[in-house]
Amino acid sequence: MRLLEERIRKDGVVKPGNVLKVDSFLNHQMDIELFNEMGKEWKRLYSDVKVDKILTIEASGIGIAAIAAQYFNVPVVFAKKTKTINLDGDLYSTEVKSFTHQTVYNVVVSKRFINAGDNLLIIDDFLANGNAINGLMDIAAAAGAKVAGVGIAIEKGFQEGGRELREKGIRVESLAIIKSMDAEKGTIEFG
Amino acid sequence: MRLLEERIRKDGVVKPGNVLKVDSFLNHQMDIELFNEMGKEWKRLYSDVKVDKILTIEASGIGIAAIAAQYFNVPVVFAKKTKTINLDGDLYSTEVKSFTHQTVYNVVVSKRFINAGDNLLIIDDFLANGNAINGLMDIAAAAGAKVAGVGIAIEKGFQEGGRELREKGIRVESLAIIKSMDAEKGTIEFG
Repeated sequence: MRLLEERIRKDGVVKPGNVLKVDSFLNHQMDIELFNEMGKEWKRLYSDVKVDKILTIEASGIGIAAIAAQYFNVPVVFAKKTKTINLDGDLYSTEVKSFTHQTVYNVVVSKRFINAGDNLLIIDDFLANGNAINGLMDIAAAAGAKVAGVGIAIEKGFQEGGRELREKGIRVESLAIIKSMDAEKGTIEFG
Repeated sequence: MRLLEERIRKDGVVKPGNVLKVDSFLNHQMDIELFNEMGKEWKRLYSDVKVDKILTIEASGIGIAAIAAQYFNVPVVFAKKTKTINLDGDLYSTEVKSFTHQTVYNVVVSKRFINAGDNLLIIDDFLANGNAINGLMDIAAAAGAKVAGVGIAIEKGFQEGGRELREKGIRVESLAIIKSMDAEKGTIEFG
């Protein structure tokens, strides 16, 4: 999606360790007009697919998912991150490793909000190693729901998450795929 | 706002300890159509006020703030909660006590995203003792920004947060104010 790529080039900051900071428009300050264009684009890409509900994960997924939901006319469920192991039988729970924070957390969703047979569109801001998305896929599977597709704002194409998901037959639509980036030169190449 | 009150009556669950669960439509599963009506209502209430930016706090504030922002045509900044004390000089930081979780956390916002003179509309899902909102007010004050108003989905009118803010001269517009609720009878009275 050219608009998002241009915005990343303009306002994204490449940091050492393959970190891309997009906090001025995506995941701290949120450009809601841009989010609307992203929502329209996911709807265009997934126009052939039945979506009953959008599933995302706090915190950075919530804003883009809420705006995108307007184009699908569906509710959004956001998975919650928690450090405590929750033994509440009313929750689907799975463990996710955070690459950025070098830690492990649990991701939980109330069983009331995902039903067997639901067609889910999973939305998140980043796809790198795929841990967060795989956690949401685990929860969908536990609920007997179907993942109609995955919508990502920025995929780090040089990490393995996207490739692994597609090899499993999961449809992944990333609005910007970064082929490479260079912290020293401050360059970003899209693929 | 009648629509929200009706929805709270229909789908809200009163729990012991003055807890109101609205996770089926507000802060776990999100009813985006309802959020749009809430956004329109905040815009109607604050139509006389200059708003440059909406400030909210993760995670439950993000969805309602993102949808509401469409009616104000402004970006949203969401404050982040962190347990670690962040000595990064690029952040505004303040301490907030959580009533629900009986814990203390830090709330941080990058200095790049709130400027002196900004007119902020603060939005959040709940107002009870006011700790989260006061934390956001601290950050606004540190930045030299003006709080044009506070928009709340559900105010617990029997707790002191709303009264204290209004006594300080802060304009607070809550879409539903709960006067009392009873976990045993499952009743909710609006005021």
